[in-house]
Amino acid sequence: MNVRVGVIGVGMIGQDHIRRITQVLTGGSVTAVNDVDAARAGQVAAGLPGATTHATAQDLVADDNVDAVLVASWGAAHEEQVLAAIAAGKPVFCEKPLAPSSAACARIMDAEMAAGRRLIQVGFMRRYDAGYRAMKAALDDGGLGAPLLMHCAHRNPSVPDYGFTTDMIISDSAVHEMDIVRWLFGEEIVAATVLQPRRSRQAGAGLQDPLILLLEMASGALVDDELFVNARYGYDVRGEVVCETGTVALADLGEVTVRSANRYGGRVPVDWRDRFVRAYDTELQEWLNAVAAGTSTGPAAWDGFAAAAVTDAALEALRTGQRTVVTMPERPDFYAK
Amino acid sequence: MNVRVGVIGVGMIGQDHIRRITQVLTGGSVTAVNDVDAARAGQVAAGLPGATTHATAQDLVADDNVDAVLVASWGAAHEEQVLAAIAAGKPVFCEKPLAPSSAACARIMDAEMAAGRRLIQVGFMRRYDAGYRAMKAALDDGGLGAPLLMHCAHRNPSVPDYGFTTDMIISDSAVHEMDIVRWLFGEEIVAATVLQPRRSRQAGAGLQDPLILLLEMASGALVDDELFVNARYGYDVRGEVVCETGTVALADLGEVTVRSANRYGGRVPVDWRDRFVRAYDTELQEWLNAVAAGTSTGPAAWDGFAAAAVTDAALEALRTGQRTVVTMPERPDFYAK
Amino acid sequence: MNVRVGVIGVGMIGQDHIRRITQVLTGGSVTAVNDVDAARAGQVAAGLPGATTHATAQDLVADDNVDAVLVASWGAAHEEQVLAAIAAGKPVFCEKPLAPSSAACARIMDAEMAAGRRLIQVGFMRRYDAGYRAMKAALDDGGLGAPLLMHCAHRNPSVPDYGFTTDMIISDSAVHEMDIVRWLFGEEIVAATVLQPRRSRQAGAGLQDPLILLLEMASGALVDDELFVNARYGYDVRGEVVCETGTVALADLGEVTVRSANRYGGRVPVDWRDRFVRAYDTELQEWLNAVAAGTSTGPAAWDGFAAAAVTDAALEALRTGQRTVVTMPERPDFYAK
Amino acid sequence: MNVRVGVIGVGMIGQDHIRRITQVLTGGSVTAVNDVDAARAGQVAAGLPGATTHATAQDLVADDNVDAVLVASWGAAHEEQVLAAIAAGKPVFCEKPLAPSSAACARIMDAEMAAGRRLIQVGFMRRYDAGYRAMKAALDDGGLGAPLLMHCAHRNPSVPDYGFTTDMIISDSAVHEMDIVRWLFGEEIVAATVLQPRRSRQAGAGLQDPLILLLEMASGALVDDELFVNARYGYDVRGEVVCETGTVALADLGEVTVRSANRYGGRVPVDWRDRFVRAYDTELQEWLNAVAAGTSTGPAAWDGFAAAAVTDAALEALRTGQRTVVTMPERPDFYAK
Repeated sequence: MNVRVGVIGVGMIGQDHIRRITQVLTGGSVTAVNDVDAARAGQVAAGLPGATTHATAQDLVADDNVDAVLVASWGAAHEEQVLAAIAAGKPVFCEKPLAPSSAACARIMDAEMAAGRRLIQVGFMRRYDAGYRAMKAALDDGGLGAPLLMHCAHRNPSVPDYGFTTDMIISDSAVHEMDIVRWLFGEEIVAATVLQPRRSRQAGAGLQDPLILLLEMASGALVDDELFVNARYGYDVRGEVVCETGTVALADLGEVTVRSANRYGGRVPVDWRDRFVRAYDTELQEWLNAVAAGTSTGPAAWDGFAAAAVTDAALEALRTGQRTVVTMPERPDFYAK
Repeated sequence: MNVRVGVIGVGMIGQDHIRRITQVLTGGSVTAVNDVDAARAGQVAAGLPGATTHATAQDLVADDNVDAVLVASWGAAHEEQVLAAIAAGKPVFCEKPLAPSSAACARIMDAEMAAGRRLIQVGFMRRYDAGYRAMKAALDDGGLGAPLLMHCAHRNPSVPDYGFTTDMIISDSAVHEMDIVRWLFGEEIVAATVLQPRRSRQAGAGLQDPLILLLEMASGALVDDELFVNARYGYDVRGEVVCETGTVALADLGEVTVRSANRYGGRVPVDWRDRFVRAYDTELQEWLNAVAAGTSTGPAAWDGFAAAAVTDAALEALRTGQRTVVTMPERPDFYAK
Repeated sequence: MNVRVGVIGVGMIGQDHIRRITQVLTGGSVTAVNDVDAARAGQVAAGLPGATTHATAQDLVADDNVDAVLVASWGAAHEEQVLAAIAAGKPVFCEKPLAPSSAACARIMDAEMAAGRRLIQVGFMRRYDAGYRAMKAALDDGGLGAPLLMHCAHRNPSVPDYGFTTDMIISDSAVHEMDIVRWLFGEEIVAATVLQPRRSRQAGAGLQDPLILLLEMASGALVDDELFVNARYGYDVRGEVVCETGTVALADLGEVTVRSANRYGGRVPVDWRDRFVRAYDTELQEWLNAVAAGTSTGPAAWDGFAAAAVTDAALEALRTGQRTVVTMPERPDFYAK
Repeated sequence: MNVRVGVIGVGMIGQDHIRRITQVLTGGSVTAVNDVDAARAGQVAAGLPGATTHATAQDLVADDNVDAVLVASWGAAHEEQVLAAIAAGKPVFCEKPLAPSSAACARIMDAEMAAGRRLIQVGFMRRYDAGYRAMKAALDDGGLGAPLLMHCAHRNPSVPDYGFTTDMIISDSAVHEMDIVRWLFGEEIVAATVLQPRRSRQAGAGLQDPLILLLEMASGALVDDELFVNARYGYDVRGEVVCETGTVALADLGEVTVRSANRYGGRVPVDWRDRFVRAYDTELQEWLNAVAAGTSTGPAAWDGFAAAAVTDAALEALRTGQRTVVTMPERPDFYAK
């Protein structure tokens, strides 16, 4: 079966997903696009034989030639667009964040539960990375005992001098660790604390970089997450889970070892695309497969909601300097693992 | 464009390519199958909506619903099938060996040259492996100086007790290094020598395992290739090119490092599929892309011929214990790099 | 010159230092021993040709055949013994802790300053480890920019079920990181916080293991230190300093890589002796060299005092769960770097 | 006991051993020196309190204040000096080569056997390297099965433009692998072949660099040894033994991993001293210990002889391009393992 995808939002990430569906993956095609910038939508559609441009996201969702919707628009627009897809009974892949507030995420969950079946996959692509998958397999195997700690580092080479705020280190960067530790540990985050270490002189004016985010899991397991968006030397995502009888850590990824000028070693990725390109491919392929099979897999609306709730707590912790409890209801049975 | 592929030979490797085209890659579909075992062909076709079963390879090649041919039959049948595709002017992907003798390969080259355009891609998938590609990029960059030596190891955990002969260590295993070093170094192999080290007690009766194959390149660069098909501990392909001012080596590929029981370390692949799955995907995707674009890329008939000529010399070297010169004509302009 | 050493305290560590001086290092001999257990002192002296047994530490210090004193007794006895050596104007190597309280350490500093020259080296052997020395060289080189963060892990395979308390994780284990980060960063620790993660079921009754100790440096640089005394898999000391343009981390130390049973990897040390044997050798050799040269190098009484002051704060932080400021005077000019 | 050592030959290596005995190791002192350059001998002795300068090696050997002799003179002088020590019944540490010809080595063995006890230790320091020792332990453990192959690389950054000949790559560099593989495998080398790969443009005029030396062990196990004395990037000694069910390889030795400028990795040693300083220390300490204990350990005259015999064969192989059998008698019982 070929899944006919309508894409809402055709900026950088939307276009990248379109390239993926049309040039890399199997089982999908892009039949409709929409963007707040109609000209851009038109340009993108021009490169897609048979694709229609819709004036509104609502129109795109309603299009009979659209089996499933991919939301890659601005975060503030996600709620309305995802709700439209749910109303139309169409599966939707929504880039993170599911919505910019936990309240909005809760409304989406309510709508999906009312619709009676899982339609939403949220774009937490790290769950599809071979490294994290091997890590989860090692944990689930049980041979290392219960996980007690995780040490994470999330390093970007740089961020734009303008427009990137300290809050965004939490909401845009740390949100990936918030999701991945929930998935790895199989439990919720109950509290967050943010520490502000010595500031790098490489950071733009007004930016507190790096940060240390501490996350407490329901079991008491503790996660420390170094967030450093001006690490300069490369894009490096590191992680080690410490268990009762051993540890498991993401390995370095250099394909070759070069020996030269009194050094041996490998390459550090240049950016997130370089590092996670395969995870994005796998993520979207599994979504297409699930849509074709009439099922839903991967990060659910509940995971989008949880990430939003933890982000809220972490931003409060950043503001106040205090440990902040995450406010979250019980996980509905609808979203049982 | 969708490339409609006819598959000749639907044993293990043929079925794997069908799975790849239909479930992993983009831009292709399988519209026809043929196999000497008609029942097997029928079973495979039954799982492929709209696919036709042909009684003969010739019929399949002639099918108007077949844009391009994938040959995954028994090596002895390749020549006739590839020649048929050339005669029909259809692009053909042929699994290694292109043909079992260099004479047969030469006939294929002659036919392709007579046809006036490149139609053949030979299945040397290592050229599509991320590790070898990074190695070639490091060599081509020039920063390490000219390559002088390469150390290779090609280790399989085991081979079947029956039917696997010492000759096959050359013709089935070493053929991969024969191709990859020609590609990495950008030059031909001019002579081969085979050394017979102490035999492993894990090797089946009559099997001389391991072997060391020495390959001399036209420039004088020397390749030593350890071939060990009962290495037991895993499937491990290693390689280091030694250049004038540095070296570049394939790195270990473990996605995670586990620390447990006084050891740290990572995983060795279990078999060739585990190790090269991505290379196979990339190989066939690039073939589909080339066919769709009306071009030809990747290992050509000349490369299949060269591998056969070097295999001939290496088998002679194995029999005689002597250094054996590779007999090969000049590379025709038609196959210029 | 041969340095004649008197050893106070000939338990496990004292005997190990005697072995070192007599069988490994150059330029020293053991001429006198003392222990609260006179029988043990006699047995040890019996194995040392020409060595005298003294009834009291004071007598040993006064012995004309003793050029320098090595204190390896119980921590509670250190103050009196070190003060005696200072009073006698003899150099003294004192195992950590210099004294069990910062007040006692302060009295020792006062006595040394009154004596007018540096006589004390404190036994923080990590400063002599090749890994930490390479790390410090990388930091001092300046090419990585200013250090902002350090991630440490200090893992013991196990501790005795009886007698090992949670406080000792701070006072016996973490004290090593307290010293090494002061030395690496070249600045003081100003505050400590202790986090209590999920407890390992491998830990003895009543033991909170692991702990996370957070140390804030005067510059604002932040250190997180995982302390895990029941890590089971081996003795593993890890550390990564994150700087403005790069990081430097302790490497794994396996001398060989073994490939076996689908794994590659190396050995983790079994215990602190295995890990730091060379550092202990270098530490004591440099002390003997300094004594022979009439100088003093290495960790000074100030470093012993600082470690005690930070330990006080960290124990308070463990008790209260609060961030606790380290109370310390200005570094006296006498102890200027 | 203090071993009083007389040193014959106080050039670079002799002076380095003197430094070692006097400033690093325990249990030895240098009481006499001799050199063909009397002025140099005098200068060195001037820095050694109580040391005597002798006009001839014979005089030094006869000195009652000399318990044991260290021969670090020119290779051509070794035979006479070692024979003198044997005649005097004094233990002797002789730098490699034991003597420049296998015939001379045989005469030394004869003299030692006539004397009736082992007096000679030959300076093959790699046997004392932690890496090779861990490798031997892994082999002797038996868990990997029988060794079948060894891949070696011996890379120097550079050699002097004048005076360094291709023969010296065999006699000075490869001799280390000749000894270490005999020790690791516990058997003799029976044949040698030398291959001449593409020459590096970094090599001086007339120098064939790199070489590949093939060594066949008595069991049939095969060793390939890359010898590259202008490798430029650093001093790198590599080795992997391939056994029936696994392999063991020397690991990289960087103490720290640096992440910087899109690379991670460690340091390659700058020269042999940097790489093997610890092995030299251990080698000479074990010699002093053995002398003090009245025993003899380590590489014996037989090992010096075997290295000379294999060197002879390898030089012949280099000249002729042919596989050359090593001519060697049975190992005398006197030198039984």
